[in-house]
Amino acid sequence: MNDVVVYALPGNEDLAQSLAHGLAASLQRLTIHHFPDGEQRVSLEGPLTGQSVVMVCALHRPDAKLLPIIFAADTARDLGAQNVVLVAPYLCYLRQDARFRPGESVSAVSFGKLLSAHFDGLVTIEPHLHRLPTLSAVYTIPVRAPHAVVPIAEWILANVSDPLIVGPDDESEAWISQIAACISAPSVVAHKTREASGRVSVRLQVPPVYAARTAVIVDDILASGQTMLATVGALVQAGFGNPVCLAVHGLFDGASVDDLLAAGAGRVVTGNTVPHACNAIDVTPVLADAVRDLLESLPTRP
Amino acid sequence: MNDVVVYALPGNEDLAQSLAHGLAASLQRLTIHHFPDGEQRVSLEGPLTGQSVVMVCALHRPDAKLLPIIFAADTARDLGAQNVVLVAPYLCYLRQDARFRPGESVSAVSFGKLLSAHFDGLVTIEPHLHRLPTLSAVYTIPVRAPHAVVPIAEWILANVSDPLIVGPDDESEAWISQIAACISAPSVVAHKTREASGRVSVRLQVPPVYAARTAVIVDDILASGQTMLATVGALVQAGFGNPVCLAVHGLFDGASVDDLLAAGAGRVVTGNTVPHACNAIDVTPVLADAVRDLLESLPTRP
Repeated sequence: MNDVVVYALPGNEDLAQSLAHGLAASLQRLTIHHFPDGEQRVSLEGPLTGQSVVMVCALHRPDAKLLPIIFAADTARDLGAQNVVLVAPYLCYLRQDARFRPGESVSAVSFGKLLSAHFDGLVTIEPHLHRLPTLSAVYTIPVRAPHAVVPIAEWILANVSDPLIVGPDDESEAWISQIAACISAPSVVAHKTREASGRVSVRLQVPPVYAARTAVIVDDILASGQTMLATVGALVQAGFGNPVCLAVHGLFDGASVDDLLAAGAGRVVTGNTVPHACNAIDVTPVLADAVRDLLESLPTRP
Repeated sequence: MNDVVVYALPGNEDLAQSLAHGLAASLQRLTIHHFPDGEQRVSLEGPLTGQSVVMVCALHRPDAKLLPIIFAADTARDLGAQNVVLVAPYLCYLRQDARFRPGESVSAVSFGKLLSAHFDGLVTIEPHLHRLPTLSAVYTIPVRAPHAVVPIAEWILANVSDPLIVGPDDESEAWISQIAACISAPSVVAHKTREASGRVSVRLQVPPVYAARTAVIVDDILASGQTMLATVGALVQAGFGNPVCLAVHGLFDGASVDDLLAAGAGRVVTGNTVPHACNAIDVTPVLADAVRDLLESLPTRP
């Protein structure tokens, strides 16, 4: 593996620093100048010749972030980087993965093509895939997209005694079972239905033997928060007061933390993939392993 | 030439309609849905199979516009378009055309590469080129970038009696002479110096024989407005009250119209390349000719 240089796009400094530490890499400064006309200029410090470059940028609210990461990647390569990898702890544009109505853009494909043209590799964690079997269906570059099972399990083990792991929908069953198995905890999976209006309802049956446990609802993404709110409601109704709400990616586009607490949640925690006051689960070790594995697989240019 | 379909990105409806008329093309609807997480979905109406598609989007404040135009282009091609051309009446990211300090991005190159990967051709008008000899230095697709001399000259002829055309700097000399020659008006060119602080000063000598004329300051771009303000000041000092300020692209990033009027300008007019209340010069006929010429040059796919 070449020498590795890590750069943080604005807002990603903490994770980048921790990732650089995990990779025994140097963290160098990336700055963005905003011109009055709305254009941006990226500047990279540090020697780049022959280096493997890791750009760290969580891609929630992605539109304003796209040009800076592309400018940064092109500049690094231009200045002699051996290869340039994007670490997007939260990866965007995965929901529109098919044409649901005639004439619609399939942004998952376009976005994959776009990033694949400017980076040599992509690392993310727990991408929110629906119909796509893997990210490689839309990314033509090498990708690593590990699960967040271990850091989730470790956080629950350290912070919740006698947990009951609760999955919000059938899709989550295998993932929830893995997390539960890691810490020898029981798990249940709810049945979620989404009405045409977007309203989510959740049915949940919890065996009475788990009545004394603390429920921990685990989901990959907390966006509108409707699923989490409905699951909190179902648990409270079933007698499980103050469940913990845990999500890898906390976008909080709809329901806020206060809304979840008002509905009966005891605590809301998220992974540090999208910077937020709720960040409690450090996914950096998983990302570092994935970056190392990816970099070792990339061809060396002469 | 194939059948042509024109789509307007939001805010470009007027120019797109006028362009469709000029091309005897159909104007079809493009809509953008904004998801709560900040992602966007583009939808295109109308049959696309075998069509030449023209997307119209002025690229001032470009960052939020990039993904929609790329999604739109990819979707059109995906749905069978013969080729997809971008009409960007104002083209962005042309100023950072070299690395002025170590580590800086050269966004003109990156942006050119990006658009060239998703479009089959590009049409703009009067691009603000400094060190680049032509747009083809950074765009690998066929480009048409005509001058705005004719619509500027026509507007002056129709709206200003006894004009004196004033160029704000030496660089503008050839262009200013062409405009003046079109309408048999005299012209003078000022000498502009920009201090390290960004402050602009303008020296201007006007032969006394032009004293009774109305000065029309003509520039390609009105961004910070410093050049225009300084030229207005120099003209007022030379006894030319109420000069007309004319720019092809009015960005108004710094000085406002009111600032220019307060400095002594009589009127401020811009081309309709960037939508603004000052738009008075219709560049659509020039763009339509350029689009027609470009489309005729593109290879037909089997």
